[in-house]
Amino acid sequence: MLLICRRETRAYSLWRRTIIPIASQGHLIKPSIMHLRFSLNVNKHSTCTTGSLYYLLIVGSSSLSFRSHTCGELRPADVGKEVTLCGWVQYLRQDLFVIMRDFSGLAQILIPQDEAKIDLKTALCDLPPESVIRVKGTVRLRPDGQENKMPTGEIEVLAESVEILNVCRKLPFEIKDFVKKSESLRMQYRYLDLRSSQMQYNLRLRSQLVMKMREYLCNVHGFVDVETPTLFKRTPGGAKEFVVPSREPGRFYSLPQSPQQFKQLLMVAGIDRYFQLARCYRDEGSKPDRQPEFTQVDIEMSFVDQAGIRGLIEGLVQYSWPVEKGPVSTPFPCITYEKAMKDYGVDKPDTRFAMKLMDISKTFHNTEIEFLKDALNQPGGCIQAICIPDGAVRMPIKPSIFFLVKADGALKSPLNRLMPASAKQQLLQMAQARPGDLLLISAGTQECRPLLGKLRLQCAELLEGSGVAVRDPSAFHFLWVVDFPLFLPKEEDPDQLESAHHPFTAPLPEDAHLLYSLPHKVRGQHYDLVLNGCEIGGGSIRIHKASDQQHVLETILKEDPSLLSHLLEALDSGAPPHGGIALGLDRFLSIIVGAPSIRDVIAFPKSFRGHDLMSRAPDFVSEDELKSYHISVNWPAGDDGNQEK
Amino acid sequence: MLLICRRETRAYSLWRRTIIPIASQGHLIKPSIMHLRFSLNVNKHSTCTTGSLYYLLIVGSSSLSFRSHTCGELRPADVGKEVTLCGWVQYLRQDLFVIMRDFSGLAQILIPQDEAKIDLKTALCDLPPESVIRVKGTVRLRPDGQENKMPTGEIEVLAESVEILNVCRKLPFEIKDFVKKSESLRMQYRYLDLRSSQMQYNLRLRSQLVMKMREYLCNVHGFVDVETPTLFKRTPGGAKEFVVPSREPGRFYSLPQSPQQFKQLLMVAGIDRYFQLARCYRDEGSKPDRQPEFTQVDIEMSFVDQAGIRGLIEGLVQYSWPVEKGPVSTPFPCITYEKAMKDYGVDKPDTRFAMKLMDISKTFHNTEIEFLKDALNQPGGCIQAICIPDGAVRMPIKPSIFFLVKADGALKSPLNRLMPASAKQQLLQMAQARPGDLLLISAGTQECRPLLGKLRLQCAELLEGSGVAVRDPSAFHFLWVVDFPLFLPKEEDPDQLESAHHPFTAPLPEDAHLLYSLPHKVRGQHYDLVLNGCEIGGGSIRIHKASDQQHVLETILKEDPSLLSHLLEALDSGAPPHGGIALGLDRFLSIIVGAPSIRDVIAFPKSFRGHDLMSRAPDFVSEDELKSYHISVNWPAGDDGNQEK
Repeated sequence: MLLICRRETRAYSLWRRTIIPIASQGHLIKPSIMHLRFSLNVNKHSTCTTGSLYYLLIVGSSSLSFRSHTCGELRPADVGKEVTLCGWVQYLRQDLFVIMRDFSGLAQILIPQDEAKIDLKTALCDLPPESVIRVKGTVRLRPDGQENKMPTGEIEVLAESVEILNVCRKLPFEIKDFVKKSESLRMQYRYLDLRSSQMQYNLRLRSQLVMKMREYLCNVHGFVDVETPTLFKRTPGGAKEFVVPSREPGRFYSLPQSPQQFKQLLMVAGIDRYFQLARCYRDEGSKPDRQPEFTQVDIEMSFVDQAGIRGLIEGLVQYSWPVEKGPVSTPFPCITYEKAMKDYGVDKPDTRFAMKLMDISKTFHNTEIEFLKDALNQPGGCIQAICIPDGAVRMPIKPSIFFLVKADGALKSPLNRLMPASAKQQLLQMAQARPGDLLLISAGTQECRPLLGKLRLQCAELLEGSGVAVRDPSAFHFLWVVDFPLFLPKEEDPDQLESAHHPFTAPLPEDAHLLYSLPHKVRGQHYDLVLNGCEIGGGSIRIHKASDQQHVLETILKEDPSLLSHLLEALDSGAPPHGGIALGLDRFLSIIVGAPSIRDVIAFPKSFRGHDLMSRAPDFVSEDELKSYHISVNWPAGDDGNQEK
Repeated sequence: MLLICRRETRAYSLWRRTIIPIASQGHLIKPSIMHLRFSLNVNKHSTCTTGSLYYLLIVGSSSLSFRSHTCGELRPADVGKEVTLCGWVQYLRQDLFVIMRDFSGLAQILIPQDEAKIDLKTALCDLPPESVIRVKGTVRLRPDGQENKMPTGEIEVLAESVEILNVCRKLPFEIKDFVKKSESLRMQYRYLDLRSSQMQYNLRLRSQLVMKMREYLCNVHGFVDVETPTLFKRTPGGAKEFVVPSREPGRFYSLPQSPQQFKQLLMVAGIDRYFQLARCYRDEGSKPDRQPEFTQVDIEMSFVDQAGIRGLIEGLVQYSWPVEKGPVSTPFPCITYEKAMKDYGVDKPDTRFAMKLMDISKTFHNTEIEFLKDALNQPGGCIQAICIPDGAVRMPIKPSIFFLVKADGALKSPLNRLMPASAKQQLLQMAQARPGDLLLISAGTQECRPLLGKLRLQCAELLEGSGVAVRDPSAFHFLWVVDFPLFLPKEEDPDQLESAHHPFTAPLPEDAHLLYSLPHKVRGQHYDLVLNGCEIGGGSIRIHKASDQQHVLETILKEDPSLLSHLLEALDSGAPPHGGIALGLDRFLSIIVGAPSIRDVIAFPKSFRGHDLMSRAPDFVSEDELKSYHISVNWPAGDDGNQEK
């Protein structure tokens, strides 16, 4: 795009609604190699006056480039223009047309058929697909009846000259969206896989979304983008942290799982509002759909409460949300951890569909059914149910305890004859069950809820598999989950407490007094952001007083506070009240674009075993190269490593 | 700042000239927790009409916060406003005033003196400096004669209530800009050091500059921000790369020194325009003012030539340049490597001052001075000189070969009596030397130039040390250096060639034919960006044909091309012509802010030995924790590591 601007004006580019200040603070901004003097009107659309100094600015996707336009942008309005295009040969058609591609789309190039340019024609017709060419030519309308529905389907470019910039000699698979490739082939030739329109869309959307997030945080709310170190000290017991040997014997850096300590220290430092698109590291072996390195939108603010952080994030999501994905309304719904567990059996409920858990204990108050009676008699005993709409008809599974609601409203169940009619009636009413529905019940303590919660999700999948629309695939349901317990009993020793999230979370103000008396009853100022049943972010208001932090570490968690002495010292040096959040960018993006894996929103991901299949990392390093790090490899018995090299 | 906006209009915030689209693409953007309905005119400055839906937006540095204003922003125009401030106690004055600080500046709080609020007064007067408080009060003008020249020096805030948010109990040094701290104390208590106004300025400027760079690249020129992996494969012989052990015996990742391979692969992938603020790693032990991790502005473009990249970077610098540092004019001057060596004896000349090298061989054409004659008689022999203005008067040093130009224009030199008058006259003329100047000469081959180049810089420092203004400390001289040799003789074996920069740089088109015949004569399409004598960036147009790349690796550099087989394969799969650049962000910023070290523009830098003095990283890791990585530590003789733990 060309912009012609008078000195000391502001030019408004139509391109992506960007405003380019041509003259800012008295000095000129010329984002282009080309700045020309004009002494008269140069364009009928400009408001140039004679005698002034004008600048010709080239901005947008074709600035500073060999090309004048991108392949995908040409339209009937461009007819008659001399254009230069650069891109890849998608395919040849009838020895007459080259279909040419760049990131923006396809253009049809008409190969000149006259005798004088026969060499050009020969060269083009011999050219393998995916070769790189530069075409100069003129845009014209396609002849009647030859238009198609591509965005550029009404025009074509009559080539005057074509230059072959590079010949494609090797191609393990065709670059066509419909050609299915194995995951390992895609990873090995990632640079070809990224040419697909879906991967181009995913990476470009990621860039744009991140840019909008930065604008919102930096320009709208005055956040400071601060980079924190990734070569850090190992967290005691941080089993998931990669180590990095230093040149001092026995000393290692560690790649941190998050900048948690640094973001809090930045608040103590008076940075006031910090954010960072932070690279984080987690060595988890081969968990499905995890990556050893990932990116989080890391945020921390001083002098803020939960509502402030939640409002900030709601605005952030709304501001950066891709227009084509429809509107997002705020504020996001917010439920407590307790309610989430009660209604959905999980702390990250998928609220795109109902099928909530119901407590139907009352129905079986006087039951004669032995195992239900036993369940109800134990402390905290209850009977829970979910009602699967149309489940009686559609569900292929038949669990052991179920009620089919028959067409006539009667119940069919192994328990049927053990229940009085009144109880059945009450059950149907409580569950608001209609004919064709399936009721699944579970009896036990509170712990039967997570089981039903999982069953709820599996039923949704099964129903969808059988063609029932349970969840709208284009819907995005955001949800805050709050008021988590601050501490949970340790699995290996239930008398001991451990942090539900991390030891820096502050208690709810109304529970703060319990910290010193009944810590297991304390709820924390932690909040999780859930999207379509996935946790995409979490954060908290932090403890900002050293004495409270020391009490939590030493007395409640029985940890050695000296390991965090620098943080405790910092809190004692005038720490402001502060809180923050981290959003998992890869997961968030994969949900937005509907990708099955976070690998589809990362340019060069690792395989699920943590391998880079293109360059073959991790790889062997010679003992000699390890010497300066004072380490050596412990080869497993019978394996000296040589045969694998 | 409050913004009141009607639905479906665009609101123009005055705050940092940001434009906040209130309604974008039909859905509402509310970057705030507060959105209120108004049914009548609410503000005399607004153009609200009755009956519409209005939104109250809070943006800027006090949005979503406990405070209504920042300490540093209050002015006489705010008199009468009820405000809430949050910040640190800088100091108390006369038991009457609290001087309160946040990142934006200082505000004077008048402590209420009435009997009813005696508790408040007592609490405040006992409060240690750097404690954190929240103050509610009313802005008023200071009484006549009590104003000062601080930005908020005309007003004060009469406190109605004060809340103590945290008491500062521990402070290793006072937070006052004039208090000098040792470097190690600053690093150990970095969270306090960052409270200084200089460090606040440096980090905030860094954030703003980076934001502007992103706007320019992403919004103006359509670049795509792509994150590349930092867990990668080790470069063969990459002695400066940190290794990261994986859970597979003997296999290591490596932390890359730059995303060079990935950026080129992204061009092959059709990303077209890539940028990234890339974290890079270099294990150099303890070189002065280097960091084991650093950040570069990493850029790559397809279908571009040298002029395109240079124009892009000139625009980038201009667009992101801090207003308060004065204008930057473009295009930047550009000289060849050959000319830089000839005029300055170095490939990154400081062009803020002249004192250029001169070839004065002619003067000594017929000299009788033995060692000069010998020098001139050897192949490539020459005699070089620099003229130090006022050097005869000011320079404390007296090198062995010098000419003082005396007040009467006569020369004083150990060589004096060996030179005929005509030669002296010619020398003075060639050097344009004036009385008081000092001429330093060096005789030998071309290699005497780098020596004189260093002498030139040292003389500038010495002159400045004695009070002569040689370089304007507020001047910023950008310079492109181009046409570097593509290959240089290896130091250890001058018959062998090695890449002057890296093996991916393309030859100059006019030298390309020499690649297969006289490779040592080939100049590369490499360009360095120099600012005030420091190299702040470098890049090149890359080789995009696999056959050329293979030839360079295999035939010229004698390297094993199989180690880069994935890159060679990629070039054979339709690689577009491409080129790029990387700017060293830390160095660039340190020059802009005039910092003595890059540590002053990094939030949490390592010491020159690579240590984090705050958390004490790197640290010892137990043998047990290393087990899963199949490595063990080789303790030096007599050191089993235990005593150091």
